[in-house]
Amino acid sequence: MTMITKPSLDRWLLQRIFEKIGPAPIRFYFKGENVSPPHVTPLATINVADWQTLAKLILDPEIGFGEGYAKGTIQVEGDLPAALTAVYRTMAERPGPAWYSRLRSKWMEWSQSNSLHGSRANIHRHYDLGNDFYKLWLDAQLLYTCAYFPTPSSGLEQAQIAKMDHICRKLRLRPGETVVEAGCGWGAMALHMARSYGVSVKAFNISREQIQHARQRAAEEDLTGRVEFIEDDYRNLSGKFDVFVSVGMLEHVGLDHYADMGRVIHRSIGNRGRGLLHFIGKNQKGDFSRWIRRRIFPGAYAPTLREAMTVLEPWNYSVLDVENLRWHYARTLEHWLQRFDNSGSAIAAKYDAWFRRAWRLYLAGSIAGFRSGSIQLFQMLFAGPECRPLYWTRAALYRDSQNQPAHKEHEREPGEPQPQREPWIHATS
Amino acid sequence: MTMITKPSLDRWLLQRIFEKIGPAPIRFYFKGENVSPPHVTPLATINVADWQTLAKLILDPEIGFGEGYAKGTIQVEGDLPAALTAVYRTMAERPGPAWYSRLRSKWMEWSQSNSLHGSRANIHRHYDLGNDFYKLWLDAQLLYTCAYFPTPSSGLEQAQIAKMDHICRKLRLRPGETVVEAGCGWGAMALHMARSYGVSVKAFNISREQIQHARQRAAEEDLTGRVEFIEDDYRNLSGKFDVFVSVGMLEHVGLDHYADMGRVIHRSIGNRGRGLLHFIGKNQKGDFSRWIRRRIFPGAYAPTLREAMTVLEPWNYSVLDVENLRWHYARTLEHWLQRFDNSGSAIAAKYDAWFRRAWRLYLAGSIAGFRSGSIQLFQMLFAGPECRPLYWTRAALYRDSQNQPAHKEHEREPGEPQPQREPWIHATS
Repeated sequence: MTMITKPSLDRWLLQRIFEKIGPAPIRFYFKGENVSPPHVTPLATINVADWQTLAKLILDPEIGFGEGYAKGTIQVEGDLPAALTAVYRTMAERPGPAWYSRLRSKWMEWSQSNSLHGSRANIHRHYDLGNDFYKLWLDAQLLYTCAYFPTPSSGLEQAQIAKMDHICRKLRLRPGETVVEAGCGWGAMALHMARSYGVSVKAFNISREQIQHARQRAAEEDLTGRVEFIEDDYRNLSGKFDVFVSVGMLEHVGLDHYADMGRVIHRSIGNRGRGLLHFIGKNQKGDFSRWIRRRIFPGAYAPTLREAMTVLEPWNYSVLDVENLRWHYARTLEHWLQRFDNSGSAIAAKYDAWFRRAWRLYLAGSIAGFRSGSIQLFQMLFAGPECRPLYWTRAALYRDSQNQPAHKEHEREPGEPQPQREPWIHATS
Repeated sequence: MTMITKPSLDRWLLQRIFEKIGPAPIRFYFKGENVSPPHVTPLATINVADWQTLAKLILDPEIGFGEGYAKGTIQVEGDLPAALTAVYRTMAERPGPAWYSRLRSKWMEWSQSNSLHGSRANIHRHYDLGNDFYKLWLDAQLLYTCAYFPTPSSGLEQAQIAKMDHICRKLRLRPGETVVEAGCGWGAMALHMARSYGVSVKAFNISREQIQHARQRAAEEDLTGRVEFIEDDYRNLSGKFDVFVSVGMLEHVGLDHYADMGRVIHRSIGNRGRGLLHFIGKNQKGDFSRWIRRRIFPGAYAPTLREAMTVLEPWNYSVLDVENLRWHYARTLEHWLQRFDNSGSAIAAKYDAWFRRAWRLYLAGSIAGFRSGSIQLFQMLFAGPECRPLYWTRAALYRDSQNQPAHKEHEREPGEPQPQREPWIHATS
């Protein structure tokens, strides 16, 4: 207590925080006064405005930080994502008491995705905030999922297109094939598949605003004959397809419904089809922050790979490829946050300060989550037991530019397995 | 029964088999007489020599087929791997009674690998058959694990080198780093890593004959200063390393010891290291055939991905990449079987007919297992929570020839993440 000139309960509590956050380059203020040990170059300063806020932060950090930040009684100056990342990393190296562990593992974790949890209300709350809102800070095609950056300095628009191509190439879509998409957002992926890969797509989403936007785009692009947007729960889907694809929906399915999801997939593509699940996952089992679940994504859950396997295993599906893209999601979110901040005045015209701060914290905390590794992004390619082999090696995915549709490559690919020997007779039939 | 001119119990039992195998292009003989419906172009004919063999086959197909084949009372003419594959596929489409399911799912499945099950006897039995035996049909460097064929027509020698490079590139080995290899076979991988990637390797194996061979190679290549071969259980390993690698050993660890294996990995590479597990796996939980476990690989078990995660999950390791190479293992085994058959006289000079037939069935059945998908081959790349990011996209793995060591590429790689923004400051430190 020697460091503290005016001992108080507030300060004593703050000291308990510093002991844990210690090496993180954060400067803490309480009621405007610096109460933390000096740091050479702090990434950020955090000011806690009053005793009530501090008490809530100590008693229930999962809720307390988010509520305080959104309310404005916790203010952060400096690089918020960098500060949160530093805190996560520091805490990961110095495990503390239970509430610090909770702070580290759950604080700002989150889920973002395209569609469906059992209740329409959950989805409506997030995705029907208004298409205009998302247009202010997403890419032009409104992809609200992890992009794929060919290089770290690629732009967001390019990276979202590259993401769609990366998935289409993994799935090795061929002209004339049929695809079902579960959770299609504003329709960009479905339209891209139909336009660039010549497939027919049936795309499901329970967000009315998103479906309306998607249908309008399909009409504008004259793709209504090949893309059907259906406002319904993916569990109600019917029909047989060659390919199942779901980008950013598994997070909304809920662990209890993974077996159902597997049944829906098998009903759609049977033993001959293949599919791809793109989802936020975790290394170890754990819930999202209660604040995120209360304020941002009701009902969301990010599975471990082990849990995700419960979707596929009952149907004897083979996992062909798992790719971890967590750094790409961090980068995606950096673009979103920058665009969000750049649209400050337009957003302020429509949304109050609480909402803007809450949303900013959600984006910044998500960046920190992906950077520190407390959340991951998995793309999981799988195939039924009677599916044709998709490629001999993954070099096929990287042979040309990322944006080269795979079907153009198909005819001339040198590594393409030939039906010269027994396996490929079965394989290519 | 109208088809059968001379009704008998034997024939009645054979009919039960045909009903299930029906569409598979196999012709069955019993005591030299064709007892199956005509097929236009049978892939193979199977002759069951006597009633005792037939009875054993019906009562306990897992053991009965293998024992009958090895004994010579079941003979197969034609393409044995193709015939077995056809039977597997047909049966997968027509599920039958329990014993047929067992036949389908377990019959000829197997495990092959480099090292360790708790008991040295298990390993000794398979791997200490004599280096001279394996030299007759493996590649020049004696790699007894799935190769990586840049194209389906690549040769085995090239493909085994490409496999080692593929793993080294995935792990992004850098000169001066330290690697521990659990289950090193005849030492090829350890020597390759040291020679081509400039790392120091400590390699464990409990097969005495293999270790002796590996040490001799290290001496011949003047690599003893950088590769240490240790005749011991990997669980006894000590020291800290940058990288953990295990190629074809997890199959011998046994599900009960996965937690131990995770502990050993974490003891070796901590939170900053990375590693790769290369192993035979399955889509759904199931044992290898009892015949394979009795005669070929005592104590072997191929895990599902879900089970494999139990090694990594307790330590908060991130899965970065899973690649399924089952078609590459089928191709590898085709090469091995061809070489085995070509070495018939040399093998006959040392081993009796029972052994030769058993070994041939094991290789052919394994081909069928990988072709039909009842077994898979997974390469799983993982990293600790504080590991530097290894590459920005997997394009880095495919940019040059497969045989280009990754460290040469390292300096000049265009997609290399730069420490321009926050994540990569941490990332590259």
